Amino acid sequence: MRINTTPPSGFLELTPSLQLEFEKLKKIIEETYQMYGFTPLDTPLIERSSTLLAKGSEETDNQIYFVKNKNSKEENELALRFDLTVPLARYVANNINNLTFPFKRSHIGKVYRGERSQAGRFREFYQCDIDIIGKENLSIHYDAEIPSIIYQIFKKMDIGKFKIKINNRKILNGLFEEIGLTVPFSKVLAIIDKSEKITKSELVNEFYKLEIEENQIKNLENFMCIKGDVKNVIEKLKDLPIKNYIFNQGIEELEIVTNTMIMLNVPPSYFEIDLSIVRGLDYYTGTVYETIMEDNNIGSVCSGGRYDNLLENYSENLPGVGISIGLSRLFYCLKESGIIKERKKTIADVIIITNNKENIKTGIETANTLRTNNINVDFLFEDMKIKKKYAYIDKLNTPFVIVVKDIDEKEVLSLQYRKNGNLEKEILTMNQILKIISDELKI
Amino acid sequence: MRINTTPPSGFLELTPSLQLEFEKLKKIIEETYQMYGFTPLDTPLIERSSTLLAKGSEETDNQIYFVKNKNSKEENELALRFDLTVPLARYVANNINNLTFPFKRSHIGKVYRGERSQAGRFREFYQCDIDIIGKENLSIHYDAEIPSIIYQIFKKMDIGKFKIKINNRKILNGLFEEIGLTVPFSKVLAIIDKSEKITKSELVNEFYKLEIEENQIKNLENFMCIKGDVKNVIEKLKDLPIKNYIFNQGIEELEIVTNTMIMLNVPPSYFEIDLSIVRGLDYYTGTVYETIMEDNNIGSVCSGGRYDNLLENYSENLPGVGISIGLSRLFYCLKESGIIKERKKTIADVIIITNNKENIKTGIETANTLRTNNINVDFLFEDMKIKKKYAYIDKLNTPFVIVVKDIDEKEVLSLQYRKNGNLEKEILTMNQILKIISDELKI
Repeated sequence: MRINTTPPSGFLELTPSLQLEFEKLKKIIEETYQMYGFTPLDTPLIERSSTLLAKGSEETDNQIYFVKNKNSKEENELALRFDLTVPLARYVANNINNLTFPFKRSHIGKVYRGERSQAGRFREFYQCDIDIIGKENLSIHYDAEIPSIIYQIFKKMDIGKFKIKINNRKILNGLFEEIGLTVPFSKVLAIIDKSEKITKSELVNEFYKLEIEENQIKNLENFMCIKGDVKNVIEKLKDLPIKNYIFNQGIEELEIVTNTMIMLNVPPSYFEIDLSIVRGLDYYTGTVYETIMEDNNIGSVCSGGRYDNLLENYSENLPGVGISIGLSRLFYCLKESGIIKERKKTIADVIIITNNKENIKTGIETANTLRTNNINVDFLFEDMKIKKKYAYIDKLNTPFVIVVKDIDEKEVLSLQYRKNGNLEKEILTMNQILKIISDELKI
Repeated sequence: MRINTTPPSGFLELTPSLQLEFEKLKKIIEETYQMYGFTPLDTPLIERSSTLLAKGSEETDNQIYFVKNKNSKEENELALRFDLTVPLARYVANNINNLTFPFKRSHIGKVYRGERSQAGRFREFYQCDIDIIGKENLSIHYDAEIPSIIYQIFKKMDIGKFKIKINNRKILNGLFEEIGLTVPFSKVLAIIDKSEKITKSELVNEFYKLEIEENQIKNLENFMCIKGDVKNVIEKLKDLPIKNYIFNQGIEELEIVTNTMIMLNVPPSYFEIDLSIVRGLDYYTGTVYETIMEDNNIGSVCSGGRYDNLLENYSENLPGVGISIGLSRLFYCLKESGIIKERKKTIADVIIITNNKENIKTGIETANTLRTNNINVDFLFEDMKIKKKYAYIDKLNTPFVIVVKDIDEKEVLSLQYRKNGNLEKEILTMNQILKIISDELKI
């Protein structure tokens, strides 16, 4: 019987070269989250099913992977997490007396959803979350810190133009109150949520179907026409003759958030107010975010917002604000669109080879020196013909190769590297080699 | 109904402070693996059950966690991996034509075993593996690279004295052949494996029970008395009047491995030859390793060795050598024995607070400058009373605190930090602060 060696359907597995590119993005996220004081957390991938089902929707319930082994007492006692927010809520509830609030945590981990597998949708995928949890209150300034971090991350990733879209649900809810909508607000939000994908007349038609009155639709239409740069949109919103408290609170929050983002060094061209951004239907209560890649039609790659009560299924009232980057999907889309390419096949920046067995000692000493200087080095110990050694090097495509060889019965180090598009080969001293490599790798 | 907020039984979950200590160890492992050219790999946590059951033992089979959701066709089609070696074999088999051999990969990930939960044994735990896979051949020098990496890691971790114990199973197998043992070698190995835990007479008794002959037992006893420093042990082994080819091949390999470890900068006091190290019973074929903490009776924290055929359930014949650090168990033991302690509660090295709302802008500018210089900064935006802000700082215990405050209507930066055991408070310029913090954190 031939054994199937592919991963199960719907599970992403990368080649070494692509894994290296993936790790680069993951590292940028990790380090930037830490740079802003978000302490990394790690929770079990397996939770009690009751914890997951208490917070999930019907959709997530259907996707839950249950877990059991021979000694399990109950059939569906344990399951794999489907997001990182439910585990966060359980963790915070469990440690509430030992945490210091505002509590800033980051979590990069895999989550599981047994959905029908399709391109770009995986059953196992990475989420990269940050949340700030307050006790009773949480300053609105934190709502600005979150998208500023996202800006830093996408900038460092260097994967094309992007834009962070911001809105505040208080503005929408206040507007609905002001114009006296009597239909459930969530239904109106659901229509607004898809306004980017449908025509204006389709939109109006959807409002009609909800039996919203003519003049109310006019109001909604006018509202959704408000566009422009951040300052402009806020001015237009302020100019509206709306007295509703929630509405005006929303504008005030949006103004603080966007002003603070400028202080936090986010250039105005990287974010905008988009009054049609809603994000989910029940969870978020204030600021909401989406991030889109401008050269790519892959939808939001990172979204989140402000919520009133993380622990709604537990005890205390804890407000929070957070965001999640769907890294697996983002990576898959970038790869498919050719923005991310396979480059080298190894984490090593330098490969050392020797032209005979006697030179191994010098080769190892060279490796030791480079490693002491924080350079990733692979030493090819395999006793292969020199031709095969060069084939190995070519395949791995590292930036530097050092060949230890004999010239006139003296051991020398020959460094091979690319400079201005040409392949350089030079006999150099250890110190010269160290300098060239350190400079090039910026170590 | 009160919801249970603890993680399921047998699953480790850490406080933020301990998580930070855990991450430090994980990062040392990760970076050192990379330093030696081991490319990080990531495979799904969920595998086909058939893949896992084909390679597991009865013990692991009983511990397997099966995974299913509402749409699963078969009951036990999928399961959680119980180690990182079976997924490696599947990955290598699946990518065999695209990998470059020798193939060096590292993998740090969680694995699952549904065993009875007890102190220090978890149902979910981290394994940190490296393996080098050859095609047809694999140089014996790689057997020296592996323990050299382990030395670097445990040295950097700074968690107490440790010793790497090395043996070669060819020596044992060759000896058994030479003295003409007729009982299955695996049974003799099992006795030798526990020789450290039983008395000499118990050991002899165990041999008798296997109906090993008197003079053979004498031979085994004499052999197991061989102790001393590496050079010494190898000399004694060479002096034995044993002609067996496998035996002498084992000695030769052990000599190359230990000599190469010296070249790779491992001090002789950190490793020894221990002829009673066996490691598992079927898998390993040559060099074997264990690492023990000398101040701690926690058994081997890291073990591995040389194997002949990674893909025994697949097609080609691929030799390899590898090792695995059981990080969760190691961490738990270090914590229990007080070697690892809670220190600070946040990843931030600096916390910035302001004494009034007007100073937020200067505070943010300060944060921006520090972050641009790769310093992890938390900014306390929450509008709390200054006393509460100081309480927040005290709890988080970061090395540096910057207070933005007004003196004579001028904003100043006051830096608080510990120096020679004293709490320093100084009004400083941004540049002075940056220098002190960078120097202290060695950034």
